[in-house]
Amino acid sequence: MVIMTSTPSGTFLPILERIAEEISHTPGSGRPADYIPALAACDPRSFGMAVAELDGTVYGVGEWRQPFSAQSVTKVFTLALDLAREGDELWEHVGREPSGNPFNSLVQLEYENGIPRNPFINAGALVVTDRLQTRTGDAAGELLAFLRAESGNPALDFDQEVAASETAHGARNAALAHFMASYGNIDNDVPVLLDQYFRQCSVATSCADLALASGFLARHGIRADGSRLLSRSQAKQINAVMLTCGTYDAAGDFAYRVGLPGKSGVGGGIIAVVPGRCTLCVWSPGLDERGNSVAGVAALDRFTTLTGLSVF
Amino acid sequence: MVIMTSTPSGTFLPILERIAEEISHTPGSGRPADYIPALAACDPRSFGMAVAELDGTVYGVGEWRQPFSAQSVTKVFTLALDLAREGDELWEHVGREPSGNPFNSLVQLEYENGIPRNPFINAGALVVTDRLQTRTGDAAGELLAFLRAESGNPALDFDQEVAASETAHGARNAALAHFMASYGNIDNDVPVLLDQYFRQCSVATSCADLALASGFLARHGIRADGSRLLSRSQAKQINAVMLTCGTYDAAGDFAYRVGLPGKSGVGGGIIAVVPGRCTLCVWSPGLDERGNSVAGVAALDRFTTLTGLSVF
Amino acid sequence: MVIMTSTPSGTFLPILERIAEEISHTPGSGRPADYIPALAACDPRSFGMAVAELDGTVYGVGEWRQPFSAQSVTKVFTLALDLAREGDELWEHVGREPSGNPFNSLVQLEYENGIPRNPFINAGALVVTDRLQTRTGDAAGELLAFLRAESGNPALDFDQEVAASETAHGARNAALAHFMASYGNIDNDVPVLLDQYFRQCSVATSCADLALASGFLARHGIRADGSRLLSRSQAKQINAVMLTCGTYDAAGDFAYRVGLPGKSGVGGGIIAVVPGRCTLCVWSPGLDERGNSVAGVAALDRFTTLTGLSVF
Amino acid sequence: MVIMTSTPSGTFLPILERIAEEISHTPGSGRPADYIPALAACDPRSFGMAVAELDGTVYGVGEWRQPFSAQSVTKVFTLALDLAREGDELWEHVGREPSGNPFNSLVQLEYENGIPRNPFINAGALVVTDRLQTRTGDAAGELLAFLRAESGNPALDFDQEVAASETAHGARNAALAHFMASYGNIDNDVPVLLDQYFRQCSVATSCADLALASGFLARHGIRADGSRLLSRSQAKQINAVMLTCGTYDAAGDFAYRVGLPGKSGVGGGIIAVVPGRCTLCVWSPGLDERGNSVAGVAALDRFTTLTGLSVF
Repeated sequence: MVIMTSTPSGTFLPILERIAEEISHTPGSGRPADYIPALAACDPRSFGMAVAELDGTVYGVGEWRQPFSAQSVTKVFTLALDLAREGDELWEHVGREPSGNPFNSLVQLEYENGIPRNPFINAGALVVTDRLQTRTGDAAGELLAFLRAESGNPALDFDQEVAASETAHGARNAALAHFMASYGNIDNDVPVLLDQYFRQCSVATSCADLALASGFLARHGIRADGSRLLSRSQAKQINAVMLTCGTYDAAGDFAYRVGLPGKSGVGGGIIAVVPGRCTLCVWSPGLDERGNSVAGVAALDRFTTLTGLSVF
Repeated sequence: MVIMTSTPSGTFLPILERIAEEISHTPGSGRPADYIPALAACDPRSFGMAVAELDGTVYGVGEWRQPFSAQSVTKVFTLALDLAREGDELWEHVGREPSGNPFNSLVQLEYENGIPRNPFINAGALVVTDRLQTRTGDAAGELLAFLRAESGNPALDFDQEVAASETAHGARNAALAHFMASYGNIDNDVPVLLDQYFRQCSVATSCADLALASGFLARHGIRADGSRLLSRSQAKQINAVMLTCGTYDAAGDFAYRVGLPGKSGVGGGIIAVVPGRCTLCVWSPGLDERGNSVAGVAALDRFTTLTGLSVF
Repeated sequence: MVIMTSTPSGTFLPILERIAEEISHTPGSGRPADYIPALAACDPRSFGMAVAELDGTVYGVGEWRQPFSAQSVTKVFTLALDLAREGDELWEHVGREPSGNPFNSLVQLEYENGIPRNPFINAGALVVTDRLQTRTGDAAGELLAFLRAESGNPALDFDQEVAASETAHGARNAALAHFMASYGNIDNDVPVLLDQYFRQCSVATSCADLALASGFLARHGIRADGSRLLSRSQAKQINAVMLTCGTYDAAGDFAYRVGLPGKSGVGGGIIAVVPGRCTLCVWSPGLDERGNSVAGVAALDRFTTLTGLSVF
Repeated sequence: MVIMTSTPSGTFLPILERIAEEISHTPGSGRPADYIPALAACDPRSFGMAVAELDGTVYGVGEWRQPFSAQSVTKVFTLALDLAREGDELWEHVGREPSGNPFNSLVQLEYENGIPRNPFINAGALVVTDRLQTRTGDAAGELLAFLRAESGNPALDFDQEVAASETAHGARNAALAHFMASYGNIDNDVPVLLDQYFRQCSVATSCADLALASGFLARHGIRADGSRLLSRSQAKQINAVMLTCGTYDAAGDFAYRVGLPGKSGVGGGIIAVVPGRCTLCVWSPGLDERGNSVAGVAALDRFTTLTGLSVF
């Protein structure tokens, strides 16, 4: 598959342009994540959006080639990489139910004996990373190699400054990891795990990169090179988990408004999947109070409204 | 639209027959709801499944014409009937996020000041019924008229014995209603509301009835007689709420396994929607620990696996 | 025992006068309870304080003879009246641990299957009243008779306006009662129970009345007429429950500052016990955010500081 | 003050002997703490009890000179040592309310933004140790010096095996510390803090040692050498916190049964204070489900019943 990164004739390009136009008239709303300086410095008015079709065609509007911090969007890829290796045994260590709580809460974790609700809250992503680490010895490296391959962008890399900053402000995640370790649900040493986890969150990617890298979810498990990463059933399952758990404590609202499997990150990126058709990535750093990009959700909402491409 | 209730040539009939065959080889598992005698008396080995196509064709296997207690499946219809009248104002009184808690829990309700998480937990359904009651003066009557019209079955009715039994064992729902009233989120007198609520839950319906009555969700808001109940967008929204919140504390698992918008009831019924294609209803009274029909979920899981008709 | 209601030579009178003097220089702080109009109308600057010695001598300062709404202070007496009849069986239906939650919370009640944490949160007091009602047929009447006898004040009575107002705003307590009924922990019909409960809360009493009525707790279980209400051990136990649970979610702070068994009410009254020595009642309607009288706690704090009469 | 460690004529000796006799007829009940091997190895039938009078006279029964792991009993001394230095500022960092939750729960900590409920749950003790560490540079060393001085036993020491074992099984405490650090409520590096914390918990002490070391709480703040550690008011305050929070989630029951300020540890020790009169320490490793020594609570219950020395 050849990845074509500029396609003036892209099917949805006129729609993307219309959305970008509408968004540009909306004053920047939401606030960038401020728990680490590297994210807080983002301009909340930034906006980019890309669509990747099944054949690897990718196109976009606005700052669709501008790298940003992928953050929790990477949780989808780590989940896929571990599920591909481990299969259903993973689900004995992490659930797949919406949490009904903020993404870094410890409450439910305590009631449920150290088994996180789903792989997309921080606790669950720590478990997935821990398991991938056990299987590969370098979870973050696996992720990076996968993203480079799928996006066709060998320059993709960790952002060391962001990773260092996450580590410096990582007390909550350290608490989550130690807490799960107290229930025997973490295999690796906590500092090793946190290093892997923070590095993978720090990957700098563009909308184009992430739209392409998500393609296997629209292609029912098939990677960019035509090889199979996941079974058809597993790809469907990840989409289901994204729809019910992908946008923190706003999954119901996202399903209601957008109606697509999606995963957001506090860097302001959101990926979304139209199964069998295409993948999208939108980026704008201004977040709502639940940690999702305000303009990003609005743009995806417009996309499914204008195209009728919701799964419902 | 003519409702054809026997269609040997139904598209999915061979698949339904295969599923029924498989299910028949599985020993009855799960236990009927036992909080009221009328439900506890059900035979857990009962099984029926029906498909209604967009044009009103309906067909099924097993006990697909046997009436059973619709229970929480009716919450979908009450939601639609209220949303059709009230529009988005409803969402100021009930959320649309998965709850992450059992369906009759009070915990989240307290933290969120009497606003239930979604319309499908009991607290949320009480709010919806309360609002429909305010607008119509007879919420249960509205529901019954709607079910009769959509199913083409004028014999559909409340089960007075079940309603009386629910009332006698209704202390938890009474607590929920009074609790929300203490936050000003209930308009009607609590005993009036509970009477309406328990009667609507008691409706006795068959798989054929419920598959037909759900048709508007597959037809993007259009009723059986061709009139519009909901806007296209509202129909999509209800499907989204069903997918994220329709099966109690197992919505994530249901999305993962079945991959369709669905709503279950403790009578053992489950409806599911394939948008733009058909609706299904399956019934088997044996419940799992989260209140969903064991054989019902298994049958829907097989259906989407065999047909590839998941939304993902 | 002769009750002497004016004793210029009361042992602690100079100390009470000093406290009243100090309090008078403090601007009224806190706010009267505002959930019912009858309480909201109180003047937050009102202040009265009385001491009753073991022999029934009673004296006070400020508005120590002015009736106010006893509210939750009555929970001590209902507890004693039921414990005297029922003995330890009561503790199978209500715990005796501090709740760590506001006094009308449902959260803990759900985790602990309808068994309230202690007899002084609303849920627990409802259980105690329910059990006393079962044993006497008129729990509120029993309470009234007891208060009249111990205070030597036959004019003590329910305040019908307050009781009616409580009933009209009683949705939260109705929710608590129905909720516990759903666990089988309430015997009487909920409306009957609520009527008994709200009437008993409404009793209008003065500092003098309540200081005298509490005397049995300082006399190790002996009533004003010399008869025994409780065993020595039971009297000690009630004092212990008062110390650990008597001031809502501020029991630790009250123990820390005052160091005496005490019980507060949202009418602004607080009783306190110096075992083997005397009982106190202070009243001032301005409440802190946890529902305790601001000036009342301050006055008791001063009392134990000046006299050294803390139990610690 | 001369510490007399053998006093056949001790006031309460006959009572202790009677209690020991009664306990010896009770089959060992409860189970030793099993989260670390060093504690799990204890014989649950071990029993010792000591009384220290105000003048330093100490006597006991059973294995009253046998060292055991002091564990959480040390929290009282660390609290006193920090309060003596810091005063009321401490209470901005830790509360003094009963928690209503198990001693190592994270739930309340999250709702209350990293401020532990009281100094005797693990989270609160970590805060106290952290603050003492900041003030002294060696919190555990301060504690050890204090215990040696008050008990007159220069051989008192940390148990390195226990400390190492705690560290190896310390994931939950690590989680608590990191979690509070995420709210800015921990000053020192978490590994440094945990080392201090686990060492102080590991101190091996006998009933005689702990009864003597607690003496300042019965002497209203005066140490064994006659110098003042705490103001009279502070000593009273610590007693109050012990009564309301000293026995984990069973403080209400302990107050109800024993009626004295007390503090338990999972090593099976419990200290108790009769203000102005004496201090006690009882030890027996069999714990109830809430972490308190079964025989220890029973022995103290008997003591106050036989002597009438409850504070109530």
